[in-house]
Amino acid sequence: MSAYQSAVPGYRLGDPSLPQSPVSLAELDLLKQTLLFTEEDTYYLRKAGDVLVPQTDAILDVWYGFVGSHPHLLHYFTNKADATPNMDYLGRVRARFGQWIKDTTDADYGQSWLNYQHELGVRHTRAGKNKTDNVASVEHIHLRYLIAFIVPISATIEPFLNKADASPDEARKMHAAWTKAVVLQVILWSHPYIKPGDF
Amino acid sequence: MSAYQSAVPGYRLGDPSLPQSPVSLAELDLLKQTLLFTEEDTYYLRKAGDVLVPQTDAILDVWYGFVGSHPHLLHYFTNKADATPNMDYLGRVRARFGQWIKDTTDADYGQSWLNYQHELGVRHTRAGKNKTDNVASVEHIHLRYLIAFIVPISATIEPFLNKADASPDEARKMHAAWTKAVVLQVILWSHPYIKPGDF
Ligand code: HEM
Ligand code: HEM
Repeated sequence: MSAYQSAVPGYRLGDPSLPQSPVSLAELDLLKQTLLFTEEDTYYLRKAGDVLVPQTDAILDVWYGFVGSHPHLLHYFTNKADATPNMDYLGRVRARFGQWIKDTTDADYGQSWLNYQHELGVRHTRAGKNKTDNVASVEHIHLRYLIAFIVPISATIEPFLNKADASPDEARKMHAAWTKAVVLQVILWSHPYIKPGDF
Repeated sequence: MSAYQSAVPGYRLGDPSLPQSPVSLAELDLLKQTLLFTEEDTYYLRKAGDVLVPQTDAILDVWYGFVGSHPHLLHYFTNKADATPNMDYLGRVRARFGQWIKDTTDADYGQSWLNYQHELGVRHTRAGKNKTDNVASVEHIHLRYLIAFIVPISATIEPFLNKADASPDEARKMHAAWTKAVVLQVILWSHPYIKPGDF
Protein backbone atom coordinates (compact mmCIF):
# COMPACT_ATOMS: atom_id res chain seq x y z
CA MET A 1 0.00 0.00 0.00
CA SER A 2 1.50 3.30 -0.99
CA ALA A 3 1.52 6.21 1.42
CA TYR A 4 -1.23 8.22 -0.25
CA GLN A 5 -3.58 5.29 0.17
CA SER A 6 -2.74 5.34 3.85
CA ALA A 7 -5.30 4.47 6.48
CA VAL A 8 -4.93 7.97 7.95
CA PRO A 9 -7.67 10.11 6.37
CA GLY A 10 -6.28 13.13 4.54
CA TYR A 11 -2.67 11.92 4.64
CA ARG A 12 -0.94 12.52 1.29
CA LEU A 13 2.82 12.05 1.59
CA GLY A 14 3.92 10.49 -1.68
CA ASP A 15 0.74 11.39 -3.54
CA PRO A 16 1.94 12.13 -7.10
CA SER A 17 -0.99 14.46 -7.72
CA LEU A 18 0.29 17.02 -5.19
CA PRO A 19 1.50 20.23 -6.85
CA GLN A 20 5.24 20.83 -6.96
CA SER A 21 6.74 22.77 -4.06
CA PRO A 22 7.74 26.36 -4.87
CA VAL A 23 11.03 25.57 -3.09
CA SER A 24 13.63 23.73 -5.16
CA LEU A 25 15.84 20.87 -4.00
CA ALA A 26 18.85 23.17 -4.49
CA GLU A 27 17.27 25.76 -2.17
CA LEU A 28 16.49 22.99 0.31
CA ASP A 29 20.14 21.99 0.28
CA LEU A 30 21.23 25.56 1.13
CA LEU A 31 18.66 25.65 3.91
CA LYS A 32 20.07 22.44 5.36
CA GLN A 33 23.56 23.92 5.28
CA THR A 34 22.30 27.04 7.02
CA LEU A 35 20.77 25.12 9.86
CA LEU A 36 23.78 22.81 10.18
CA PHE A 37 21.82 19.74 9.09
CA THR A 38 24.22 16.93 8.12
CA GLU A 39 24.19 13.19 7.44
CA GLU A 40 24.79 12.71 11.13
CA ASP A 41 21.43 14.34 11.82
CA THR A 42 19.71 11.95 9.41
CA TYR A 43 21.32 9.07 11.29
CA TYR A 44 20.20 10.37 14.69
CA LEU A 45 16.70 11.13 13.41
CA ARG A 46 16.32 7.47 12.43
CA LYS A 47 17.45 6.46 15.90
CA ALA A 48 15.04 8.99 17.42
CA GLY A 49 12.27 7.38 15.38
CA ASP A 50 12.99 4.01 16.97
CA VAL A 51 12.51 5.63 20.36
CA LEU A 52 9.65 8.02 19.63
CA VAL A 53 7.30 6.08 17.36
CA PRO A 54 6.33 3.54 20.04
CA GLN A 55 5.60 6.49 22.37
CA THR A 56 3.49 8.39 19.82
CA ASP A 57 0.31 8.42 21.87
CA ALA A 58 2.02 9.66 25.01
CA ILE A 59 3.73 12.43 23.01
CA LEU A 60 0.46 13.50 21.43
CA ASP A 61 -1.15 13.59 24.88
CA VAL A 62 1.48 16.11 25.96
CA TRP A 63 1.07 18.25 22.85
CA TYR A 64 -2.71 18.17 22.92
CA GLY A 65 -2.59 18.94 26.63
CA PHE A 66 -0.50 22.00 25.86
CA VAL A 67 -2.84 23.22 23.12
CA GLY A 68 -5.93 22.39 25.14
CA SER A 69 -4.78 24.36 28.17
CA HIS A 70 -4.18 27.56 26.17
CA PRO A 71 -7.37 29.16 24.84
CA HIS A 72 -5.43 31.21 22.29
CA LEU A 73 -4.15 27.92 20.78
CA LEU A 74 -7.25 25.76 21.20
CA HIS A 75 -9.00 28.55 19.30
CA TYR A 76 -7.65 27.16 16.03
CA PHE A 77 -9.51 23.90 16.58
CA THR A 78 -12.82 25.54 17.44
CA ASN A 79 -16.00 25.80 15.42
CA LYS A 80 -16.35 29.16 13.77
CA ALA A 81 -20.04 29.38 14.62
CA ASP A 82 -19.93 29.02 18.40
CA ALA A 83 -16.24 28.89 19.40
CA THR A 84 -16.54 25.42 20.95
CA PRO A 85 -13.74 22.90 20.33
CA ASN A 86 -14.45 20.60 17.39
CA MET A 87 -13.64 17.19 18.86
CA ASP A 88 -13.95 15.43 15.55
CA TYR A 89 -11.44 17.80 13.96
CA LEU A 90 -9.06 17.42 16.90
CA GLY A 91 -9.25 13.66 16.55
CA ARG A 92 -8.67 13.52 12.81
CA VAL A 93 -5.73 15.92 12.97
CA ARG A 94 -4.29 13.89 15.85
CA ALA A 95 -4.03 10.82 13.64
CA ARG A 96 -2.08 12.74 11.01
CA PHE A 97 0.07 14.33 13.70
CA GLY A 98 1.00 10.85 14.92
CA GLN A 99 2.00 9.87 11.40
CA TRP A 100 4.03 13.06 11.18
CA ILE A 101 6.25 12.07 14.11
CA LYS A 102 7.25 8.97 12.20
CA ASP A 103 7.63 10.89 8.94
CA THR A 104 9.86 13.48 10.58
CA THR A 105 12.29 10.83 11.74
CA ASP A 106 12.08 9.01 8.38
CA ALA A 107 12.26 11.91 5.96
CA ASP A 108 14.23 11.45 2.74
CA TYR A 109 14.13 15.16 1.84
CA GLY A 110 13.30 14.32 -1.77
CA GLN A 111 10.88 16.00 -4.16
CA SER A 112 7.79 14.15 -2.87
CA TRP A 113 8.65 15.06 0.68
CA LEU A 114 9.19 18.68 -0.38
CA ASN A 115 5.84 18.80 -2.17
CA TYR A 116 4.05 17.52 0.91
CA GLN A 117 5.77 20.08 3.12
CA HIS A 118 4.21 22.80 1.04
CA GLU A 119 0.81 21.15 1.34
CA LEU A 120 1.24 20.99 5.14
CA GLY A 121 2.03 24.70 5.21
CA VAL A 122 -1.02 25.49 3.09
CA ARG A 123 -3.19 23.43 5.44
CA HIS A 124 -2.29 25.84 8.25
CA THR A 125 -3.43 28.85 6.21
CA ARG A 126 -6.73 30.21 4.95
CA ALA A 127 -5.94 28.61 1.59
CA GLY A 128 -6.15 25.06 2.90
CA LYS A 129 -7.26 24.88 6.53
CA ASN A 130 -10.40 22.84 7.28
CA LYS A 131 -10.64 21.40 3.77
CA THR A 132 -9.05 18.04 4.50
CA ASP A 133 -11.52 17.32 7.27
CA ASN A 134 -14.40 19.30 5.81
CA VAL A 135 -14.95 21.26 9.03
CA ALA A 136 -16.26 24.75 9.74
CA SER A 137 -13.45 25.91 12.02
CA VAL A 138 -11.65 29.27 12.13
CA GLU A 139 -9.95 30.03 8.84
CA HIS A 140 -6.30 30.58 9.51
CA ILE A 141 -3.47 29.75 11.90
CA HIS A 142 -1.18 32.71 12.47
CA LEU A 143 2.41 32.20 11.45
CA ARG A 144 3.74 33.64 14.68
CA TYR A 145 2.53 30.59 16.55
CA LEU A 146 3.92 28.17 13.99
CA ILE A 147 7.37 29.62 14.54
CA ALA A 148 6.84 29.76 18.31
CA PHE A 149 5.87 26.07 18.37
CA ILE A 150 9.46 25.21 17.52
CA VAL A 151 10.16 25.62 21.23
CA PRO A 152 7.48 23.37 22.78
CA ILE A 153 7.71 20.79 19.97
CA SER A 154 11.43 20.59 20.64
CA ALA A 155 11.43 20.85 24.45
CA THR A 156 8.65 18.36 25.11
CA ILE A 157 10.34 15.65 23.06
CA GLU A 158 13.46 15.60 25.22
CA PRO A 159 12.10 13.47 28.09
CA PHE A 160 10.82 10.91 25.58
CA LEU A 161 14.28 10.65 24.05
CA ASN A 162 15.87 10.28 27.45
CA LYS A 163 13.84 7.13 27.94
CA ALA A 164 15.92 5.54 25.20
CA ASP A 165 18.60 3.03 25.84
CA ALA A 166 21.10 5.66 24.70
CA SER A 167 24.00 7.53 26.23
CA PRO A 168 23.40 11.16 27.26
CA ASP A 169 25.55 12.16 24.29
CA GLU A 170 23.38 10.17 21.88
CA ALA A 171 20.18 11.54 23.41
CA ARG A 172 21.59 15.04 22.94
CA LYS A 173 22.34 14.35 19.28
CA MET A 174 18.90 12.87 18.66
CA HIS A 175 17.36 15.94 20.24
CA ALA A 176 19.46 18.35 18.18
CA ALA A 177 18.55 16.48 14.98
CA TRP A 178 14.87 16.56 15.91
CA THR A 179 14.97 20.29 16.54
CA LYS A 180 16.67 20.99 13.22
CA ALA A 181 14.09 18.85 11.43
CA VAL A 182 11.28 20.84 13.05
CA VAL A 183 12.87 24.21 12.20
CA LEU A 184 13.35 23.07 8.60
CA GLN A 185 9.69 22.11 8.30
CA VAL A 186 8.44 25.33 9.86
CA ILE A 187 10.52 27.23 7.30
CA LEU A 188 9.00 25.30 4.41
CA TRP A 189 5.51 25.66 5.87
CA SER A 190 5.96 29.43 6.13
CA HIS A 191 6.14 29.84 2.35
CA PRO A 192 2.42 30.39 1.71
CA TYR A 193 2.37 33.10 4.39
CA ILE A 194 5.11 35.25 2.88
CA LYS A 195 4.83 38.13 0.45
CA PRO A 196 5.93 37.15 -3.08
CA GLY A 197 9.71 37.28 -3.37
CA ASP A 198 10.33 37.64 0.34
CA PHE A 199 10.57 33.97 1.35
CA MET B 1 23.59 59.00 27.66
CA SER B 2 20.41 57.39 26.42
CA ALA B 3 20.51 54.41 24.12
CA TYR B 4 19.52 56.23 20.96
CA GLN B 5 22.48 58.53 21.38
CA SER B 6 24.62 55.43 21.57
CA ALA B 7 28.11 55.36 20.15
CA VAL B 8 27.06 52.53 17.83
CA PRO B 9 26.03 54.16 14.51
CA GLY B 10 22.47 53.34 13.52
CA TYR B 11 21.52 51.86 16.91
CA ARG B 12 18.06 53.03 17.98
CA LEU B 13 16.77 50.98 20.92
CA GLY B 14 14.79 53.41 23.06
CA ASP B 15 14.48 56.05 20.35
CA PRO B 16 11.02 57.58 20.96
CA SER B 17 10.69 58.55 17.29
CA LEU B 18 10.50 54.90 16.17
CA PRO B 19 7.04 53.94 14.89
CA GLN B 20 4.91 51.74 17.11
CA SER B 21 5.19 48.00 16.54
CA PRO B 22 2.22 46.39 14.77
CA VAL B 23 2.37 43.71 17.49
CA SER B 24 0.72 44.62 20.79
CA LEU B 25 2.04 43.91 24.28
CA ALA B 26 -0.93 41.57 24.80
CA GLU B 27 0.04 39.60 21.68
CA LEU B 28 3.62 39.53 22.89
CA ASP B 29 2.45 38.02 26.16
CA LEU B 30 0.62 35.21 24.34
CA LEU B 31 3.71 34.60 22.24
CA LYS B 32 5.83 34.28 25.37
CA GLN B 33 3.35 31.76 26.78
CA THR B 34 3.46 29.80 23.54
CA LEU B 35 7.20 29.49 23.60
CA LEU B 36 7.28 28.68 27.31
CA PHE B 37 9.08 31.90 28.20
CA THR B 38 8.83 32.57 31.95
CA GLU B 39 10.38 34.78 34.62
CA GLU B 40 12.96 32.05 35.09
CA ASP B 41 14.10 32.64 31.54
CA THR B 42 14.50 36.35 32.21
CA TYR B 43 16.63 35.47 35.22
CA TYR B 44 18.84 33.08 33.23
CA LEU B 45 19.14 35.54 30.35
CA ARG B 46 20.63 38.10 32.74
CA LYS B 47 23.07 35.49 33.97
CA ALA B 48 23.88 34.58 30.36
CA GLY B 49 24.61 38.23 29.72
CA ASP B 50 27.22 38.26 32.48
CA VAL B 51 28.94 35.38 30.72
CA LEU B 52 28.47 36.36 27.09
CA VAL B 53 29.00 40.11 26.98
CA PRO B 54 32.72 39.89 27.89
CA GLN B 55 33.09 37.30 25.09
CA THR B 56 31.25 39.39 22.49
CA ASP B 57 34.15 39.64 20.06
CA ALA B 58 34.88 35.93 20.12
CA ILE B 59 31.18 35.15 19.53
CA LEU B 60 31.01 37.57 16.61
CA ASP B 61 34.12 35.94 15.13
CA VAL B 62 32.29 32.61 15.11
CA TRP B 63 29.14 34.06 13.55
CA TYR B 64 31.00 36.10 10.96
CA GLY B 65 33.13 33.04 10.19
CA PHE B 66 29.96 31.07 9.56
CA VAL B 67 28.47 33.73 7.28
CA GLY B 68 31.78 34.35 5.53
CA SER B 69 32.30 30.68 4.69
CA HIS B 70 28.88 30.32 3.01
CA PRO B 71 28.57 32.27 -0.25
CA HIS B 72 24.76 32.09 -0.10
CA LEU B 73 24.89 33.96 3.23
CA LEU B 74 27.79 36.31 2.55
CA HIS B 75 25.75 37.32 -0.50
CA TYR B 76 23.59 39.55 1.70
CA PHE B 77 26.61 41.65 2.65
CA THR B 78 27.85 42.09 -0.91
CA ASN B 79 27.76 45.11 -3.17
CA LYS B 80 24.96 44.94 -5.65
CA ALA B 81 27.15 46.23 -8.45
CA ASP B 82 29.95 43.67 -8.43
CA ALA B 83 28.99 41.02 -5.82
CA THR B 84 32.09 41.68 -3.73
CA PRO B 85 31.74 41.73 0.07
CA ASN B 86 31.24 45.24 1.44
CA MET B 87 33.74 45.33 4.29
CA ASP B 88 32.52 48.63 5.57
CA TYR B 89 28.95 47.32 5.80
CA LEU B 90 30.12 44.13 7.51
CA GLY B 91 32.00 46.19 10.07
CA ARG B 92 29.19 48.58 10.89
CA VAL B 93 26.63 45.79 11.25
CA ARG B 94 29.08 43.90 13.45
CA ALA B 95 29.09 46.74 15.99
CA ARG B 96 25.28 46.64 16.21
CA PHE B 97 25.32 42.87 16.38
CA GLY B 98 27.62 43.09 19.39
CA GLN B 99 25.24 45.49 21.09
CA TRP B 100 22.39 43.09 20.27
CA ILE B 101 23.98 40.27 22.28
CA LYS B 102 23.85 42.49 25.33
CA ASP B 103 20.34 43.72 24.52
CA THR B 104 19.05 40.17 24.11
CA THR B 105 20.19 39.24 27.60
CA ASP B 106 18.91 42.56 29.00
CA ALA B 107 15.54 42.85 27.30
CA ASP B 108 12.62 44.28 29.27
CA TYR B 109 10.03 43.28 26.64
CA GLY B 110 8.34 46.65 26.94
CA GLN B 111 6.87 48.90 24.27
CA SER B 112 10.21 50.49 23.28
CA TRP B 113 11.80 47.11 22.96
CA LEU B 114 8.86 45.91 20.86
CA ASN B 115 9.08 48.94 18.57
CA TYR B 116 12.76 48.32 17.98
CA GLN B 117 12.14 44.64 17.19
CA HIS B 118 9.93 45.74 14.34
CA GLU B 119 12.61 48.10 13.10
CA LEU B 120 15.17 45.26 13.20
CA GLY B 121 12.84 43.10 11.12
CA VAL B 122 12.34 45.88 8.60
CA ARG B 123 16.12 46.34 8.33
CA HIS B 124 16.38 42.77 7.04
CA THR B 125 13.82 43.46 4.26
CA ARG B 126 13.74 45.50 1.08
CA ALA B 127 11.89 48.20 3.05
CA GLY B 128 14.83 48.98 5.31
CA LYS B 129 17.99 47.10 4.37
CA ASN B 130 21.07 49.20 3.52
CA LYS B 131 19.49 52.45 4.67
CA THR B 132 21.08 52.60 8.11
CA ASP B 133 24.56 52.30 6.66
CA ASN B 134 23.80 54.00 3.34
CA VAL B 135 25.26 51.14 1.31
CA ALA B 136 24.47 49.76 -2.15
CA SER B 137 24.15 46.11 -1.18
CA VAL B 138 21.57 43.52 -2.29
CA GLU B 139 18.06 44.59 -1.37
CA HIS B 140 16.53 41.88 0.74
CA ILE B 141 17.36 39.04 3.13
CA HIS B 142 15.09 36.04 2.60
CA LEU B 143 12.99 35.08 5.57
CA ARG B 144 13.85 31.40 5.21
CA TYR B 145 17.38 32.13 6.36
CA LEU B 146 16.25 34.29 9.28
CA ILE B 147 14.26 31.37 10.63
CA ALA B 148 17.07 28.93 9.85
CA PHE B 149 19.56 31.11 11.77
CA ILE B 150 17.77 30.15 14.97
CA VAL B 151 19.83 26.96 14.86
CA PRO B 152 23.37 28.33 14.45
CA ILE B 153 22.69 31.36 16.67
CA SER B 154 21.56 28.96 19.36
CA ALA B 155 24.07 26.15 18.87
CA THR B 156 27.17 28.32 18.62
CA ILE B 157 26.42 30.09 21.90
CA GLU B 158 26.52 26.90 23.94
CA PRO B 159 30.31 26.56 24.26
CA PHE B 160 30.53 30.20 25.38
CA LEU B 161 28.00 29.53 28.12
CA ASN B 162 29.84 26.44 29.22
CA LYS B 163 32.84 28.63 29.97
CA ALA B 164 30.79 30.16 32.78
CA ASP B 165 31.37 29.41 36.40
CA ALA B 166 28.00 27.67 36.39
CA SER B 167 26.73 24.16 36.94
CA PRO B 168 25.76 22.10 33.88
CA ASP B 169 22.15 22.59 34.92
CA GLU B 170 22.53 26.37 35.02
CA ALA B 171 24.34 26.40 31.68
CA ARG B 172 21.46 24.38 30.22
CA LYS B 173 18.93 26.86 31.55
CA MET B 174 20.87 29.84 30.23
CA HIS B 175 21.03 28.16 26.85
CA ALA B 176 17.30 27.38 26.79
CA ALA B 177 16.50 30.99 27.73
CA TRP B 178 18.82 32.28 25.01
CA THR B 179 17.19 30.08 22.39
CA LYS B 180 13.69 31.19 23.36
CA ALA B 181 14.79 34.83 23.21
CA VAL B 182 16.14 34.31 19.70
CA VAL B 183 13.00 32.52 18.50
CA LEU B 184 10.87 35.31 19.94
CA GLN B 185 12.85 37.95 18.08
CA VAL B 186 12.78 36.05 14.79
CA ILE B 187 9.00 35.87 15.12
CA LEU B 188 8.73 39.63 15.66
CA TRP B 189 11.16 40.30 12.83
CA SER B 190 9.09 38.17 10.46
CA HIS B 191 6.14 40.56 10.61
CA PRO B 192 7.11 42.77 7.66
CA TYR B 193 7.55 39.67 5.48
CA ILE B 194 4.06 38.28 6.01
CA LYS B 195 0.92 38.84 3.97
CA PRO B 196 -1.51 41.19 5.73
CA GLY B 197 -3.53 39.30 8.33
CA ASP B 198 -1.42 36.16 8.20
CA PHE B 199 1.16 37.00 10.88
C1 HEM C 1 6.12 23.53 14.84
C2 HEM C 1 4.89 23.89 14.50
C3 HEM C 1 3.79 22.91 14.11
C4 HEM C 1 3.88 21.61 13.71
C5 HEM C 1 5.12 20.76 13.58
C6 HEM C 1 2.54 21.18 13.41
C7 HEM C 1 2.19 19.91 12.95
C8 HEM C 1 0.99 19.62 12.35
C9 HEM C 1 0.69 18.43 11.62
C10 HEM C 1 1.66 17.29 11.39
C11 HEM C 1 -0.57 18.54 11.16
C12 HEM C 1 -1.33 17.54 10.32
C13 HEM C 1 -1.07 17.87 8.90
C14 HEM C 1 -1.78 16.96 7.95
O1 HEM C 1 -1.25 15.85 7.72
O2 HEM C 1 -2.84 17.36 7.47
C15 HEM C 1 -1.08 19.81 11.59
C16 HEM C 1 -2.33 20.31 11.32
C17 HEM C 1 -2.90 21.30 12.08
N1 HEM C 1 -2.26 22.07 13.00
FE1 HEM C 1 -0.30 22.18 13.22
N2 HEM C 1 1.68 22.21 13.63
C18 HEM C 1 2.40 23.27 14.08
C19 HEM C 1 1.87 24.47 14.49
C20 HEM C 1 0.54 24.65 14.78
C21 HEM C 1 -0.03 25.68 15.58
C22 HEM C 1 0.75 26.81 16.26
C23 HEM C 1 -1.35 25.47 15.63
C24 HEM C 1 -2.36 26.29 16.39
C25 HEM C 1 -2.83 25.83 17.52
C26 HEM C 1 -1.65 24.31 14.84
C27 HEM C 1 -2.91 23.80 14.60
C28 HEM C 1 -3.17 22.88 13.62
C29 HEM C 1 -4.48 22.64 13.04
C30 HEM C 1 -5.79 23.34 13.39
C31 HEM C 1 -4.31 21.65 12.06
C32 HEM C 1 -5.36 21.10 11.10
C33 HEM C 1 -5.26 21.91 9.80
C34 HEM C 1 -6.29 21.46 8.76
O3 HEM C 1 -7.44 21.93 8.83
O4 HEM C 1 -5.91 20.63 7.89
N3 HEM C 1 -0.47 23.82 14.33
N4 HEM C 1 -0.12 20.45 12.33
C1 HEM D 1 18.34 34.60 14.05
C2 HEM D 1 18.47 35.37 12.95
C3 HEM D 1 19.23 36.67 12.91
C4 HEM D 1 19.61 37.50 13.92
C5 HEM D 1 19.39 37.31 15.42
C6 HEM D 1 20.26 38.63 13.32
C7 HEM D 1 20.77 39.73 14.01
C8 HEM D 1 21.08 40.93 13.41
C9 HEM D 1 21.33 42.16 14.10
C10 HEM D 1 21.35 42.30 15.61
C11 HEM D 1 21.55 43.12 13.17
C12 HEM D 1 21.86 44.59 13.42
C13 HEM D 1 20.56 45.29 13.48
C14 HEM D 1 20.72 46.75 13.71
O1 HEM D 1 20.92 47.15 14.88
O2 HEM D 1 20.68 47.51 12.72
C15 HEM D 1 21.41 42.51 11.89
C16 HEM D 1 21.52 43.16 10.69
C17 HEM D 1 21.79 42.48 9.52
N1 HEM D 1 21.73 41.12 9.34
FE1 HEM D 1 20.89 39.84 10.63
N2 HEM D 1 20.26 38.48 11.97
C18 HEM D 1 19.67 37.29 11.69
C19 HEM D 1 19.54 36.75 10.43
C20 HEM D 1 20.27 37.20 9.36
C21 HEM D 1 20.53 36.45 8.16
C22 HEM D 1 20.03 35.05 7.84
C23 HEM D 1 21.29 37.23 7.36
C24 HEM D 1 21.86 36.85 6.01
C25 HEM D 1 23.12 36.53 5.91
C26 HEM D 1 21.52 38.48 8.06
C27 HEM D 1 22.21 39.56 7.55
C28 HEM D 1 22.14 40.82 8.09
C29 HEM D 1 22.46 42.05 7.38
C30 HEM D 1 22.94 42.18 5.95
C31 HEM D 1 22.23 43.08 8.29
C32 HEM D 1 22.34 44.58 8.02
C33 HEM D 1 20.95 45.06 7.63
C34 HEM D 1 20.92 46.56 7.32
O3 HEM D 1 21.25 46.93 6.17
O4 HEM D 1 20.60 47.35 8.23
N3 HEM D 1 20.88 38.42 9.26
N4 HEM D 1 21.13 41.17 12.05
